[in-house]
Amino acid sequence: MIGFDADDTLWRSQDYFDDAQAEFERIVGGYVDLADVRVLDALYAVETANIAVFGYGVKGMALSMVESATQITGGRIAALDLHRIVEMAKGLLRHPVKLLPGIRKAVEAVAVEFDVVLITKGDLFHQEAKVRESGLSDLFRRIEIVSEKDPPTYARLLAEFGIDAGQFLMIGNSLRSDIAPVLALGGWGVHMPYRTTWAHETAAEIPTDQDQAPRMRVVAAPDALPAAVDALAVCARTPREA
Amino acid sequence: MIGFDADDTLWRSQDYFDDAQAEFERIVGGYVDLADVRVLDALYAVETANIAVFGYGVKGMALSMVESATQITGGRIAALDLHRIVEMAKGLLRHPVKLLPGIRKAVEAVAVEFDVVLITKGDLFHQEAKVRESGLSDLFRRIEIVSEKDPPTYARLLAEFGIDAGQFLMIGNSLRSDIAPVLALGGWGVHMPYRTTWAHETAAEIPTDQDQAPRMRVVAAPDALPAAVDALAVCARTPREA
Repeated sequence: MIGFDADDTLWRSQDYFDDAQAEFERIVGGYVDLADVRVLDALYAVETANIAVFGYGVKGMALSMVESATQITGGRIAALDLHRIVEMAKGLLRHPVKLLPGIRKAVEAVAVEFDVVLITKGDLFHQEAKVRESGLSDLFRRIEIVSEKDPPTYARLLAEFGIDAGQFLMIGNSLRSDIAPVLALGGWGVHMPYRTTWAHETAAEIPTDQDQAPRMRVVAAPDALPAAVDALAVCARTPREA
Repeated sequence: MIGFDADDTLWRSQDYFDDAQAEFERIVGGYVDLADVRVLDALYAVETANIAVFGYGVKGMALSMVESATQITGGRIAALDLHRIVEMAKGLLRHPVKLLPGIRKAVEAVAVEFDVVLITKGDLFHQEAKVRESGLSDLFRRIEIVSEKDPPTYARLLAEFGIDAGQFLMIGNSLRSDIAPVLALGGWGVHMPYRTTWAHETAAEIPTDQDQAPRMRVVAAPDALPAAVDALAVCARTPREA
């Protein structure tokens, strides 16, 4: 069985968040000198502290932005500027789903040979809307929206799917959420980096030496996915030498 | 199979939202005369307009509060007061789970005879945390967190459970979300009203005459649930007269 991540694996996502961060910097830049204040570092610190209570997604980000903007400006920011953050969140939640070039063909090719499932984390309401709008949902046997992508979550899903980790391969752009936890369980992974990644998702311990990490491949673009999956599937079917 | 709603069916929820609304009124009351402005009506209008983009839950409510407070005060509200809304949201997301009196015993009694599942809507992250903290999760065969509780959602869940609507009974405090959609599909319902209900959840068309609605019972408290479930189960097992 092959799992696909969604944001920045099937469709563009981080670009919109990057745009929102740039807009946040412009808004706050009306109150402080951006040469003096590392606005995005301050925001990231607030977001990180709030993940345990807000979880992932646009709405939590927007609330963290309101908090961070208030802090950075010492409460001087105007309500109308904080309201712009709310409007920005609405824009992010409504943005059209733009598939990555070649991804539909790649998912279709993989789905010929394997069961494919979609596993994404974040806001249930927003993720469901994106899946619906993507036009890809019929390709997936199951669509799982989870609050965190860690080993216990993947272990629970594999139990629900009724398969062992050794029969499961995850494809995604995030080492932290898509690759490391599946490798840790004894599964397989194809890492397809996106050109921009949220700092939070880059923190992961992965052996980078291929001798150390024979269970993972890295591809640059969707058209290389089917071959990478096939190569690892051959490994998975070959009994390992001691 | 018996489905239980969670918020205000298993544990207190609306009380916390009512407290948050009262606090919102106090915050905005620092800027406008509450005798002149129907603050909570204005907030409800914003929340209703935003449901299509935010979905349900605390984070969407908080963002709607920031928007509504900015509107009501014509942008005069201080950033520190808007930030209080963010802090209030964190408090709501962290509040302890308080089970309704007698509910554990009622769920246990129903679970002796039937498969029980939990079906709740709202924020995935927050609902998962509450289920975990409730200590009730072991009683449920499945826990389903959905973005909307409408007939298509229930139809999808019943298909996943592999049962017909006639074999399914839903217990909950919301006519709109728990009872009406299940009755519409041909299922059964036990309505257990909570003493306070969000305006959004009271809007539902239900036949109130018991002759018109033999598939529904109303109970006042958890200790009456097992008998109501048993009574409807007897009806469900009896072939209907033409």
